Amino acid sequence: MLKINDNYLKLPGSYLFSTIAKKVQAFTEANPDKKIIRLGIGDVTQPLSPAIITALHGAVDDMSKAETFHGYAPDLGYSFLREAIASNDYAARGCDIAADEIFISDGAKSDSGNIGDIFSVDNKIAVCDPVYPVYVDTNAMAGRTGDYLADQQKWSNVIYMPCTSETNFAPELPKETPDIIYLCFPNNPTGSTITKPELQKWVDYANEKEAVIIYDAAYEAYISEENVPHSIYECDGAKTCAIELRSFSKNAGFTGVRLGFTVIPKALKREGTTLHSLWARRHGTKFNGAPYIVQRAGEAVYSEAGKEQTKQLIAYYMNNAKVILEGLKEAGYTVSGGVNAPYIWLKTPDKMTSWEFFDNLLEKANVVGTPGSGFGPSGEGYFRLTAFGSYENTIAAVERIKKM
Amino acid sequence: MLKINDNYLKLPGSYLFSTIAKKVQAFTEANPDKKIIRLGIGDVTQPLSPAIITALHGAVDDMSKAETFHGYAPDLGYSFLREAIASNDYAARGCDIAADEIFISDGAKSDSGNIGDIFSVDNKIAVCDPVYPVYVDTNAMAGRTGDYLADQQKWSNVIYMPCTSETNFAPELPKETPDIIYLCFPNNPTGSTITKPELQKWVDYANEKEAVIIYDAAYEAYISEENVPHSIYECDGAKTCAIELRSFSKNAGFTGVRLGFTVIPKALKREGTTLHSLWARRHGTKFNGAPYIVQRAGEAVYSEAGKEQTKQLIAYYMNNAKVILEGLKEAGYTVSGGVNAPYIWLKTPDKMTSWEFFDNLLEKANVVGTPGSGFGPSGEGYFRLTAFGSYENTIAAVERIKKM
Repeated sequence: MLKINDNYLKLPGSYLFSTIAKKVQAFTEANPDKKIIRLGIGDVTQPLSPAIITALHGAVDDMSKAETFHGYAPDLGYSFLREAIASNDYAARGCDIAADEIFISDGAKSDSGNIGDIFSVDNKIAVCDPVYPVYVDTNAMAGRTGDYLADQQKWSNVIYMPCTSETNFAPELPKETPDIIYLCFPNNPTGSTITKPELQKWVDYANEKEAVIIYDAAYEAYISEENVPHSIYECDGAKTCAIELRSFSKNAGFTGVRLGFTVIPKALKREGTTLHSLWARRHGTKFNGAPYIVQRAGEAVYSEAGKEQTKQLIAYYMNNAKVILEGLKEAGYTVSGGVNAPYIWLKTPDKMTSWEFFDNLLEKANVVGTPGSGFGPSGEGYFRLTAFGSYENTIAAVERIKKM
Repeated sequence: MLKINDNYLKLPGSYLFSTIAKKVQAFTEANPDKKIIRLGIGDVTQPLSPAIITALHGAVDDMSKAETFHGYAPDLGYSFLREAIASNDYAARGCDIAADEIFISDGAKSDSGNIGDIFSVDNKIAVCDPVYPVYVDTNAMAGRTGDYLADQQKWSNVIYMPCTSETNFAPELPKETPDIIYLCFPNNPTGSTITKPELQKWVDYANEKEAVIIYDAAYEAYISEENVPHSIYECDGAKTCAIELRSFSKNAGFTGVRLGFTVIPKALKREGTTLHSLWARRHGTKFNGAPYIVQRAGEAVYSEAGKEQTKQLIAYYMNNAKVILEGLKEAGYTVSGGVNAPYIWLKTPDKMTSWEFFDNLLEKANVVGTPGSGFGPSGEGYFRLTAFGSYENTIAAVERIKKM
């Protein structure tokens, strides 16, 4: 008789953004005349840049002729894209990452969930609290997190590293030693960052403990300040302890195009085995490559025109971030983030819970945000707004919030 | 200290097609003047059909304008594609499958590997022997297959169902009861099929044992004979025991486009839980949808023009299959498959092993095929050729083989 993976049954409720979608749908059905503005899920709204559109059309044309048709892609990605990444994202920042240490995928969400496949179930994870839910949920599915303690909104076998106003929204080295450490900077959901010396401490710690850091740098393109590292490989020794996840979703607007990559340096070994070889095996066995046309689009992000247009796109969203940040400050909210990240993290007013504020914002301002508590217990009393809306909607949302 | 998933270390050698690629590369480097013809890996060679190219360009244009831009896709796929599949692949064949029982993905390889996530490690799998290696390797990675017995080329905890000339290349009901049964018809690698009454026996057996059948129908578009089922849901009771995997790779040439889907009927429950809900949770947590432009391309496969052009594409490859089948018969080979499938399965001559024949064919005819033993111990002494080459190359390859 087939036995299911009963770790799935331990998962509380449904995935955060599904819950939000259902609440919004119910509100819309009850109030069909209200115009909702969505500053909740981190989905972009602006079209793909011209250089990318041109590359996509060109690649589609390649697929229309036998001479230039592309079947199965190389398992780990096309060289043209891996070389462009190695050169632009790493060599240009002084990081020594080879093209064959870069694995092209269909996005950082898949990678951040699938990376756990190459680790034993018997590892203890440490996560920031609040945290992007995918890290925890996918480990729960694998049976790595113990039991869910509903009263604490925590898993029994996870090390939580609180990131609150008291810690400047950065984690502190945990007392209990973890095996796998998830770090995300610029941070989703708080929009916070840490400096290179601060990140170096984590690298040194992971090397000392023989832990592995999963470093999610999906938002690195939004960094505007000098002292914030773009890659963990800017730190000495990171190649022996860190895996870096990157995405094209947030810099180039690929949320619906699907492209990302994971870097595993060949120097990263545990129990005598290179993690690179394990991930290569997983990629080759359970994945068949990102689409050719999408990889060509990714290459175009690194063209001169693509770089310039991507910069403009990011400036557009970061202007929205400024509008939200300043507008909320004027309205008397306590806010952070929004300087090196497209996320604004605000303290809910009047001691409202995160979900109370969600309902309040939806009903009074018809604005959708994300409850901080959905990202972990230390997110309770906080709320996330994103800068990914259109400029017009962002202005309108802030005006509505001011009037609440 | 991080502990790796040491199940990976049990995997013998590298993935079959990587090994072949390395052998061919070595031969090409040593013999740069030889023109290799590849009839090995099941990769298509013909360009995408005009209706699909038009749809891709249209979808790319959608992504260039804010009003028609598409960000994150619905987790489980766009309705326009799920509805087209439900109508054309199921309702049209008398199968009662709802659109929301269809999960859109980036391909059947990913799905056939990832589906194991929703099952307990404590399940015993049964596979045909020979078999598509992904089923076994992904279960080995999950720790479900026991130890690899190199002398037998088998895993200690897998039920192998030999499919040889003695069984007409079809499996027989196993003596030991499995929990998960992998079936693939039309079969990769043998090209064999079974009739609807024969498949009904498997459905009845799975329901009786409360097992689950993973039915890989990636090659259904190649069925030319009347009595061969296109979907397992043509059988009574399949909705309570079967998951069906489908691909756009082999009908519409999407190997480099990446699109597939998995059907999990809501009636399929084990241990009181619908497998549909588990897979929906996995999809929502570890996957972010197939690209919008690719899903539009999938929709175009079901347009009137798309259906007609897809039929022509399949006819093109099936003509190749006929050329290979008849050519090899003339040359005195014992061959099967190639009638309802793009694969021709031949018995190696002169008691050569599969790899000996591989080397022989590469050296003497400069043709690349796939050693049957790469698909399992009962594949030893057999060899797979595919019909996915160009017509000209297929003719040339058969001529060369005749002269060997």
